[in-house]
Amino acid sequence: MRMKADLIDLNDYPVEWWEKLLDLGHKIVSDPAAYAHACEGKIMGTLFYEPSTRTQMSFQTAMLRLGGSLIGFDNPATSSVAKGENIKDTTKIVSGYADILVMRHPTAGSVKAAALTADCPVINAGDGGHLHPTQTLTDLLTLKEEKGTLSGLTIGFCGDLKNGRTVHSLIKAMSCFKGNRFVLISTKELALPVYIKDVLSASGLEYKECSDLEKAIGELDVLYMTRIQQERFASREEYEKQKGCYVLDRKKMALAKADLIVLHPLPRVDEIEIAVDDDSRAMYFKQAEYGMYIRMALILTVLEGQAHIPLVKGREHRHTLCSNPNCITHKEKYLPHYFIGDGTTLICEYCDERTLAE
Amino acid sequence: MRMKADLIDLNDYPVEWWEKLLDLGHKIVSDPAAYAHACEGKIMGTLFYEPSTRTQMSFQTAMLRLGGSLIGFDNPATSSVAKGENIKDTTKIVSGYADILVMRHPTAGSVKAAALTADCPVINAGDGGHLHPTQTLTDLLTLKEEKGTLSGLTIGFCGDLKNGRTVHSLIKAMSCFKGNRFVLISTKELALPVYIKDVLSASGLEYKECSDLEKAIGELDVLYMTRIQQERFASREEYEKQKGCYVLDRKKMALAKADLIVLHPLPRVDEIEIAVDDDSRAMYFKQAEYGMYIRMALILTVLEGQAHIPLVKGREHRHTLCSNPNCITHKEKYLPHYFIGDGTTLICEYCDERTLAE
Amino acid sequence: MRMKADLIDLNDYPVEWWEKLLDLGHKIVSDPAAYAHACEGKIMGTLFYEPSTRTQMSFQTAMLRLGGSLIGFDNPATSSVAKGENIKDTTKIVSGYADILVMRHPTAGSVKAAALTADCPVINAGDGGHLHPTQTLTDLLTLKEEKGTLSGLTIGFCGDLKNGRTVHSLIKAMSCFKGNRFVLISTKELALPVYIKDVLSASGLEYKECSDLEKAIGELDVLYMTRIQQERFASREEYEKQKGCYVLDRKKMALAKADLIVLHPLPRVDEIEIAVDDDSRAMYFKQAEYGMYIRMALILTVLEGQAHIPLVKGREHRHTLCSNPNCITHKEKYLPHYFIGDGTTLICEYCDERTLAE
Repeated sequence: MRMKADLIDLNDYPVEWWEKLLDLGHKIVSDPAAYAHACEGKIMGTLFYEPSTRTQMSFQTAMLRLGGSLIGFDNPATSSVAKGENIKDTTKIVSGYADILVMRHPTAGSVKAAALTADCPVINAGDGGHLHPTQTLTDLLTLKEEKGTLSGLTIGFCGDLKNGRTVHSLIKAMSCFKGNRFVLISTKELALPVYIKDVLSASGLEYKECSDLEKAIGELDVLYMTRIQQERFASREEYEKQKGCYVLDRKKMALAKADLIVLHPLPRVDEIEIAVDDDSRAMYFKQAEYGMYIRMALILTVLEGQAHIPLVKGREHRHTLCSNPNCITHKEKYLPHYFIGDGTTLICEYCDERTLAE
Repeated sequence: MRMKADLIDLNDYPVEWWEKLLDLGHKIVSDPAAYAHACEGKIMGTLFYEPSTRTQMSFQTAMLRLGGSLIGFDNPATSSVAKGENIKDTTKIVSGYADILVMRHPTAGSVKAAALTADCPVINAGDGGHLHPTQTLTDLLTLKEEKGTLSGLTIGFCGDLKNGRTVHSLIKAMSCFKGNRFVLISTKELALPVYIKDVLSASGLEYKECSDLEKAIGELDVLYMTRIQQERFASREEYEKQKGCYVLDRKKMALAKADLIVLHPLPRVDEIEIAVDDDSRAMYFKQAEYGMYIRMALILTVLEGQAHIPLVKGREHRHTLCSNPNCITHKEKYLPHYFIGDGTTLICEYCDERTLAE
Repeated sequence: MRMKADLIDLNDYPVEWWEKLLDLGHKIVSDPAAYAHACEGKIMGTLFYEPSTRTQMSFQTAMLRLGGSLIGFDNPATSSVAKGENIKDTTKIVSGYADILVMRHPTAGSVKAAALTADCPVINAGDGGHLHPTQTLTDLLTLKEEKGTLSGLTIGFCGDLKNGRTVHSLIKAMSCFKGNRFVLISTKELALPVYIKDVLSASGLEYKECSDLEKAIGELDVLYMTRIQQERFASREEYEKQKGCYVLDRKKMALAKADLIVLHPLPRVDEIEIAVDDDSRAMYFKQAEYGMYIRMALILTVLEGQAHIPLVKGREHRHTLCSNPNCITHKEKYLPHYFIGDGTTLICEYCDERTLAE
């Protein structure tokens, strides 16, 4: 296997690597023109097995602004790729055309699976509900650029904190920096999972939970908004009664600090009133732009290949099947069963789920 | 709001601006190589909310021939953009990636709505049946290049003159130049609307109506063909009886001037016999090529930003709703209700329809 | 008609032309960077009337690696091109935008039809089951690069030899070189058609047929694998009994020469075990990469226009209709009926089928 620097999971890299990447992102934000030819002659393949127009355009713009060019697909339903070819063959072939692949796929572990056999570096642009590392990098660059620091911040997360990989991933990332406080604003049913709270406790970081954005907003340096889907509430009545608590409007903005910044991974539905867009503290459109800059930094870093990490940390366990029915190993049968650990409980290297060893 | 030069409606600009644009178009036609690097490092986003393959490829080619590059989508049905995100959020985000947006959308006023909040200039590539200014610019450049003038021409329009925005827009544009005569060739049912005839009368220009292309063709300098759909005729019998009068064939071409030019906005169905293509007076394929050149001129002009015009000429009337059910203000509720006028009758700034003030 | 060098059918060109193209392919493989700007400022239009993601990406990458740029479509079902516009108008218009067209279409003869009226050179990327010349060129470059020669080789073809234009075309091409031997491995029902065997006999080349890959593999220099679809077998029982004979696995590879190379046009289904991929003799992914290089050579050659050949070798026979119901002349009625020959049997110039003269 060629030495190559994939980005599958942010946690494959140490915090120092993130910081270096954010520094490069800062340099690009400050002087984008200096990088306009950095990837000249290089080709990026964007393999989007499920459509995600904004993420794909963000990566495409990033590559074009580095002087590179693009191939790819975004709608496998109408492409021949859907017709029975396995992920390995498709990604292997395209890795012979392109210098770098960006892949999105609905199944956990699929992008790592592709990276195992691809001839060029692979970036994870989302593998189902599992990982979406460039969204987290986007959030980190926005915080760094707009607050000047990743430490000592009081950060509110509002909405559905149970189901969003974006929220979980950012909380885990921010728990690596000192002195951050977390305010978790949601209904009881949609509270942050215990294993993420455990990460916070283990890091010695303070957090509190509350059920009303209006009461919490005054103390925040950062407010990270997410959507609560109506069907997540216990009943229609419950929804009508509670939803107002999780909608950001001008009235609540009036209670916030002058230097609050409001983030949102987008798309929004109605959890932020449109009138809030004109508030200079609304940072979610700017955040999308930072997403382009951090992807420029990432493409450059990955193409320079200085970040090589081994994809497989454990080893093959032929007779053990991953317990997660949505793991890519159940769809692509030829994949070696790689697990971390040697005791009775193994961790699948594709989807990170725990499984009993056979 | 950043200063920026959108092109939403040709009538937002004075005739001198059109002439300057046509002059630039002429320079590009004469020496395209001189402009091959004019937009290097610039990115165009083509946001096609309904597919229009030819228009999109024309814009894309124009940008590539200026040395720029491309992002965009053309099939929102299969893209995540269709999933509940409003026009403002999508176009605002992409305007943070791109240097110029080209947008097509099935709803009247949608492109102007996008331009209100976009961070970069926006070009209207068609907003439903409302406006399609680059088609008119294409027609003007073709006339200018092939006839050498936009004045003193006898121009025939043949086909469905009631329903084509292309025809209405070109007649209005040509009524700004001196000495043009118009021959309107159609069935009674598909005659040019009165309000367009009023424009001609107000400009002191001569026009006549007739129902048979064969009788009219001999006096024309320009013949602009359009399609009549079968279902526009009163009955199947009527269609069979009359359709021949509106089909251009070699027999009719034999009656025309040696320096006639035949235009058509394309696609054609059967209103021009394929054998006419080989006649050197058939100019419709060349016209498509001029469409690419005038779009190059437009992109350059808009990116230079020297054409800034205010998008809103009137003011917000909070309590008045536009009377046009197909106006974008009925779909995107957050849009301010901008109208021109202050009396009892207001004109919607998005779709140009008249409405009674509330 | 402008002088231009289309590639519709490999047999339109002499073997010396193929060899020159393969030589250029070799130079590009050896030093791709030397060609990185060879097509700067040129635009390729990829008109894919049926999706073929891999072929399209191969052409696109080839053009990008020559410094050119891209327009096109890949999904006419959702594009306006599908709405009633004939092939002539669409391809004529796009040939006014682009410098070279690459076209794929499900109907035999369609690409030649387009080339007749296009203003720029046209490359056939597959016209139904009829021709796919760049696949054959890909196979030839792979053989030349990996075996060092196109002569004196023992080449096995395994699988469905009855229906695969890829196999027929490569056998015909290899019959132009000296001393090649062919081993045809298939069921009786899926044997190579007689008219192709006649080509081999006429060239004085040796061939033999056999029904078991295991028995044949030991003598091969090249093994060209193809898929046998289950429904091609006489019955489900027959399929289960025989399929193993046509699947390449590690056990069979152990019986092969050390310098065998295994080719496959891809996509594969299960006719090559995935474990074979790790064998250094498995050349099918490399073959896809050679496909990109030979397309670079082809684009360069076609754009240089030194290969001009007349598209029509016979003449129009107005009253004769092609006997092939899938010929493009039955769908696009305006096409002149060009046939080769003057006796009672004519050969259609679009689809190559024989027809009785009227």
